[in-house]
Amino acid sequence: MNNSIPTKKDLEGTHKRVQPFVHRTPILTSRLINELVGSLLFFKCENFQKAGAFKMRGAINAIQQLTADQKSNGVVTHSSGNFAQAVSLAAKQLGVKAYIVMPSNAPKVKIEGVKTYGGEITFSEPNLASREREANRIQKETGATFLHPSNNLDVILGQGTSAIEFIEDQSNLDVILTPVGGGGLLAGTALACHYYHSTCKVIGGEPLQVNDAFRSLKSGKIEYNEHSNTIADGLRTHLGDINFPIITELVDEIICVSEEEIITAMKIIWERMKIIVEPSSAVPLAAILKEKKYFKGKNIGVILSGGNVDISKLPFNKD
Amino acid sequence: MNNSIPTKKDLEGTHKRVQPFVHRTPILTSRLINELVGSLLFFKCENFQKAGAFKMRGAINAIQQLTADQKSNGVVTHSSGNFAQAVSLAAKQLGVKAYIVMPSNAPKVKIEGVKTYGGEITFSEPNLASREREANRIQKETGATFLHPSNNLDVILGQGTSAIEFIEDQSNLDVILTPVGGGGLLAGTALACHYYHSTCKVIGGEPLQVNDAFRSLKSGKIEYNEHSNTIADGLRTHLGDINFPIITELVDEIICVSEEEIITAMKIIWERMKIIVEPSSAVPLAAILKEKKYFKGKNIGVILSGGNVDISKLPFNKD
Repeated sequence: MNNSIPTKKDLEGTHKRVQPFVHRTPILTSRLINELVGSLLFFKCENFQKAGAFKMRGAINAIQQLTADQKSNGVVTHSSGNFAQAVSLAAKQLGVKAYIVMPSNAPKVKIEGVKTYGGEITFSEPNLASREREANRIQKETGATFLHPSNNLDVILGQGTSAIEFIEDQSNLDVILTPVGGGGLLAGTALACHYYHSTCKVIGGEPLQVNDAFRSLKSGKIEYNEHSNTIADGLRTHLGDINFPIITELVDEIICVSEEEIITAMKIIWERMKIIVEPSSAVPLAAILKEKKYFKGKNIGVILSGGNVDISKLPFNKD
Repeated sequence: MNNSIPTKKDLEGTHKRVQPFVHRTPILTSRLINELVGSLLFFKCENFQKAGAFKMRGAINAIQQLTADQKSNGVVTHSSGNFAQAVSLAAKQLGVKAYIVMPSNAPKVKIEGVKTYGGEITFSEPNLASREREANRIQKETGATFLHPSNNLDVILGQGTSAIEFIEDQSNLDVILTPVGGGGLLAGTALACHYYHSTCKVIGGEPLQVNDAFRSLKSGKIEYNEHSNTIADGLRTHLGDINFPIITELVDEIICVSEEEIITAMKIIWERMKIIVEPSSAVPLAAILKEKKYFKGKNIGVILSGGNVDISKLPFNKD
């Protein structure tokens, strides 16, 4: 075993720490989706998680692991998405100050979310360089600790607690699928399966448009995307040097899906399960529908990663 | 007690009969909505019910109560909405043939729903007279039994089973709210509260645009609507002579809400709870938000009646 990979004890400690601060999200099933796939599917609903996504788990754990000194100086992150809201709420719950750098063009609904949870927003220009520059400045000025949304071991361990609950509540899973963007959820899930249910495969679903993780597993080094043209706004990022070795060692496969396949899968979840998931969450079901033959007859776990979507701008409108 | 009102035994028998054929739907809560209202709200999720709405309960019970002879001739109803799908699925589960009269302009998604569940569709002209004519013809030709979606005692008793479960699972409710359209759910809920938790008030939420039930309670006779211009497509109908006496005797109040208030409440449920409910389901929350002062500090039960909504035509798009 690669020695950059955390131990079962690390994961157990994380689970114990995180549990009081997050919802134990329900597992839902749908007879119609089972019939459609020819398998039994179990959906772990992180869209019902606090702040609307699994990101709450990693944020809680990462802040808890700081020293008292670090906590007193606060945390800083840059994100236009779910991690910004998660860090804001997690920090509030733990009595820590949160500085959030958001691009000036971030959706109003996300800005409002961060404000609701008490995060202090600094706006940057809408590009990565400016976001990083602002975050650096805040770090220097305040002594706040920078939290990376996916390439941080404590964040990865926190994200793994969803799969621990999943395995505890549904012991017969042959495979668990998650979406893959920055790689935190996929790496955490792979760790949980490795230590808690080692016969369970772990598969990532990735948009073909930003299939850096798929290419990284092929080439053996971290690959990047030339653009971020996917509806799955949570998956536009690339892997990092902390989660990549875990994914390389413990993930079985990554399946790529088209934008149309993502929208179709999202529509099925909305219409059949009557729950709201964001496009990123639909990527694993899209992968299952694409590779039905492979998944036939299996007990399939799917982590529905989040439900933060702007309901005034949905991809179904042009039907 | 008015002797047209069923007994507790009737309700108990219904509950026993219906249970094996329906989902015991979950009760969800939302911290943010509690804060918004200043009360504890409990949402009984009939949007997760089979066929996507509480209507399944009444359909199952009504078909079960037919004689063997009646069952062999099938059932017929006319509906463009949830009752059509519910009767189709209930009949299929009970091995009974279902004839469904739908207006020729019914939404494709509803037609597909009925087909999926095996109902035999006959299209009528898009008006009530033509729908009734077609249903009569089918009754005569096949001997099928006509099932009214709300003004049928077995249907009303079936709808009451949602509130029985609600009271069993959440024993501290001060009040339960349901939407009111044809009156089946409201009457059934009032019966359940009367016999299972008599200190719990029952309140109906109704669109101001089609407030026939509100006016009926005032005038003491069944009133009708001059038009059906409400987004709450499940609530466009009026009360009937079987449910009206029950509602008169056992319902405390009906609160009317505007179209804007319905859309606002629906958006809150979608965004905060991450679940899909149809506009009719949002009417009770709209009523609570309108009369916050009255509801302050109470333990409030809300029956979310259904989740069958055309996601390509949502009222949020013009935000």
